[in-house]
Amino acid sequence: LTGESRRGEFGAIASIAAALPGPPPGETWIGDDAAVLRHGRGWLILAADTVVEGVHADLRLTGIDDLGWKAMAANLSDLAAMGATPGHALVTVAGPPDTDLDALYRGIREAAGTYRCPVVGGDLTGCPVLVVTVAVTGSVDDGDPVLRSGARPGDTLWVTGPLGASAAGLRLLQRDAGTAGSAGTAGWERDARSAHARPVPLVAAGLAARRGGATAMIDVSDGLAADLSHLADRSGAGFELTSVPVAPAATLEEALGGGEDYQLVFAAPDDAAVIAAFEGLDPPVAIGRVVADRSVRTLGGVALAPSGWQHEW
Amino acid sequence: LTGESRRGEFGAIASIAAALPGPPPGETWIGDDAAVLRHGRGWLILAADTVVEGVHADLRLTGIDDLGWKAMAANLSDLAAMGATPGHALVTVAGPPDTDLDALYRGIREAAGTYRCPVVGGDLTGCPVLVVTVAVTGSVDDGDPVLRSGARPGDTLWVTGPLGASAAGLRLLQRDAGTAGSAGTAGWERDARSAHARPVPLVAAGLAARRGGATAMIDVSDGLAADLSHLADRSGAGFELTSVPVAPAATLEEALGGGEDYQLVFAAPDDAAVIAAFEGLDPPVAIGRVVADRSVRTLGGVALAPSGWQHEW
Repeated sequence: LTGESRRGEFGAIASIAAALPGPPPGETWIGDDAAVLRHGRGWLILAADTVVEGVHADLRLTGIDDLGWKAMAANLSDLAAMGATPGHALVTVAGPPDTDLDALYRGIREAAGTYRCPVVGGDLTGCPVLVVTVAVTGSVDDGDPVLRSGARPGDTLWVTGPLGASAAGLRLLQRDAGTAGSAGTAGWERDARSAHARPVPLVAAGLAARRGGATAMIDVSDGLAADLSHLADRSGAGFELTSVPVAPAATLEEALGGGEDYQLVFAAPDDAAVIAAFEGLDPPVAIGRVVADRSVRTLGGVALAPSGWQHEW
Repeated sequence: LTGESRRGEFGAIASIAAALPGPPPGETWIGDDAAVLRHGRGWLILAADTVVEGVHADLRLTGIDDLGWKAMAANLSDLAAMGATPGHALVTVAGPPDTDLDALYRGIREAAGTYRCPVVGGDLTGCPVLVVTVAVTGSVDDGDPVLRSGARPGDTLWVTGPLGASAAGLRLLQRDAGTAGSAGTAGWERDARSAHARPVPLVAAGLAARRGGATAMIDVSDGLAADLSHLADRSGAGFELTSVPVAPAATLEEALGGGEDYQLVFAAPDDAAVIAAFEGLDPPVAIGRVVADRSVRTLGGVALAPSGWQHEW
């Protein structure tokens, strides 16, 4: 489902979702960053993501430990986008007999430890290709999780940091591979490579956004343009962006279209409450506002086409 | 990790588990059919399993809808083996662009509907090989889940039904493929093929066993000899089997070594309580008893070597 066939993926997901039973009132199943289920007096949050060698990770450019980290990080970012606290992870590994499991699980373990989401089970099996699937639980016990669908006209749109670092890092890693060595050693180049190899899920920022009154939130995994479009579609709204923070190594195109930055984009009505909630964290950047007309999707007054990968549900 | 390399799998799992942080007192993480986590006043149960085309399912013999069913059934059986009630499922599909998603999700949907474990999310991505991973939640709110580790000397050992049907069904399907058509059409032959294509997770029986006082339980996914050895190892006990119920189409070897029957094996101290708890269900069959000497592992007085697949954790 890469390239040409990726474009049909939303159609496939829509037809799958239509055939499945829907949630009871108050719950959210397919269609957000994670599923939201009532559990006791709080909410249980569930997400799962798969990383496939050669599709999501090129082991000629990054380590198998990085692949393990990324499989965890993609899921932790989904929890972050709900404003949830990570709970536990299940890790299933399907791979060839010569897979370096020690290195793979080192990356998984590092992410699990950093974000306090211990691995409690899983499965290990043979497969011609390395496929790592992580499923995570999370919880929200002091309020409601932040869906994609709650943005209201007038809300400020925020992003948790500069965009495009992962795409720029991939470009630099590919250039390195072509020139036999790390040609660029500036700090911002190292940061970009790291952003691609070890993307950082913004768990604390997601909590802060929720506590700062976020009405809608999504993580930037398919590119800002695409993911903000998902948020706008689900909220029945449009948006006017004034500016977009671009990571030092990245182009504007990479900032708008590059996936897997794991920055969070959210809408919130009260700027002061957002600033206060992020105290002690990197401050978020205001990039525009939500408007009622859902046909309005602009950056600096110019129409913004959604683009980027389409693989989440 | 098939054949030769499968034998190293327990070693790999042991080294992975040793490097991961362990559970707090009262919880069980890696090492049982599913993870057991405290959640409010009850227990949250988590399991995940992967089905790989060509490793766990041969699409020349069974349908892609059967593969979907099997991916759900393997997880539901893990919940059954804890005496848990199914909650929700996450389904991740990695596969080639020409994958028949409609048929795959039909099988998934049928299992989800039959066992009331709705699909609430997941992921869809490209991969050269079809890999379906299901993660499930379950719950136990009226007591404690049944681990593998609680069997006590003197407990009766029970199995929920005859064994070997799945292995026999695979043999019949392979014979059919060799002779261009279903050579055997007797009822027991059709039942065996169905047991292989659409294995039945015994959710109600697992609940009954728990309520009937089961001290230890496991599902037969690797073969009775292997899985009963896991239960005995974890319980620090041995066992003496007097007989084993063999499915009509199966050989004794298939009953002892064939995997993926999804029958449940459990130990319980009070035979009358077990019989009463199974009222309205197919009655379980007493096959022997637990003994204190862990070196004793016999069937009809003859030593029983563990065998079969080793792929669960």
